Amino acid sequence: MAEFTFYTVAMSRGQISRWALHEAGADYDHVVFDWAQRPDGFTDINPMNKVPALVHHHGTHDHVITEAAAINHYLAETHPDKGLLPDAHERAAYFRWLFFAAGPLEQALIARAMGWEVPEDRQVMAGFGDFERTLSALDGWLSNNDFAAGKRFTMADTYVGSHVAWGLQFGTLPETPAIRAYADRVSDRPAFREASAIDRKLVDEAAETA
Amino acid sequence: MAEFTFYTVAMSRGQISRWALHEAGADYDHVVFDWAQRPDGFTDINPMNKVPALVHHHGTHDHVITEAAAINHYLAETHPDKGLLPDAHERAAYFRWLFFAAGPLEQALIARAMGWEVPEDRQVMAGFGDFERTLSALDGWLSNNDFAAGKRFTMADTYVGSHVAWGLQFGTLPETPAIRAYADRVSDRPAFREASAIDRKLVDEAAETA
Repeated sequence: MAEFTFYTVAMSRGQISRWALHEAGADYDHVVFDWAQRPDGFTDINPMNKVPALVHHHGTHDHVITEAAAINHYLAETHPDKGLLPDAHERAAYFRWLFFAAGPLEQALIARAMGWEVPEDRQVMAGFGDFERTLSALDGWLSNNDFAAGKRFTMADTYVGSHVAWGLQFGTLPETPAIRAYADRVSDRPAFREASAIDRKLVDEAAETA
Repeated sequence: MAEFTFYTVAMSRGQISRWALHEAGADYDHVVFDWAQRPDGFTDINPMNKVPALVHHHGTHDHVITEAAAINHYLAETHPDKGLLPDAHERAAYFRWLFFAAGPLEQALIARAMGWEVPEDRQVMAGFGDFERTLSALDGWLSNNDFAAGKRFTMADTYVGSHVAWGLQFGTLPETPAIRAYADRVSDRPAFREASAIDRKLVDEAAETA
């Protein structure tokens, strides 16, 4: 058995974590399904009934990790020789932008896609404030830094970069020069291309048999 | 100058990170303001114009950390002797529940407070699926585990615990026996009481001078 079992759907947030599995060079098997046919007992692994979910067969224990950002960071921690973790001076930005993408950025993108408006007097409550400010915070950072943690690629970029690349692709994130350049920079990785090719093939196969 | 400068508003998410500062025993000064009067240049520190924000005066560098969950985890990393970081077998759950609280849980609580409904055919997109499932995932974990990372208190509990304690206090999170017991367990910490007392005093002083 491989060290990790990865539960995913080809066209899903699972792509974010498959990229991380390939960056880490993790030893993994995948269990691929579609939304309509989840494996029996999947909610025992993730009671949110969502993908991605990762099981780490760790000595005599199985550890379950859910939430794409958590999975990706966990893979960096369990493969420390890959240089994907931040050093002491990169750590503040690494965690800042990882949680920014998992919190305010995702909230802002979803609220916009759903057509939800935050009343002006409740922007403090909403956490992301408003869409323009969230976008501007991200654009400001990427105008001055090549990567989430600063000058070099780290695991944070698999998560922040996925949000940015998907947001541009689906038109939910407005394009700025800095945001476009970042999306191009992070997706120019062998691990990104490997992971994308696997999921693209699965999508194509599913379309052929449908 | 203290090692950390902490920007906060007394009645805000800043309380989440003040608790973490006290758990870590961090050497910090605070800059306290109210929403109407932010310090000049605050958006240079946090372009989201939100609190909490933390500046780490680290050797010759200043590092800015925003997002409460990132701040709290960063404080655990920079104070490793305090035993607030997860060990190798706690790490999966630690990051899983930290990102669960920053992502799906916060989204579900805000969507409910704002009166936003996720159409059934778009639950995959929304990330948190629906409120009941999110609540049930949390309740299930806390029915079988005393803390976010398992058997003992870690820094993840300052963040997950704050969401839970505030959610119960403001009535945005339904009470279950496991969720109530967890809220009581994590708030029975000297650092929680110290931090709360500081913010309570600031709120009282502001009320007297208003």
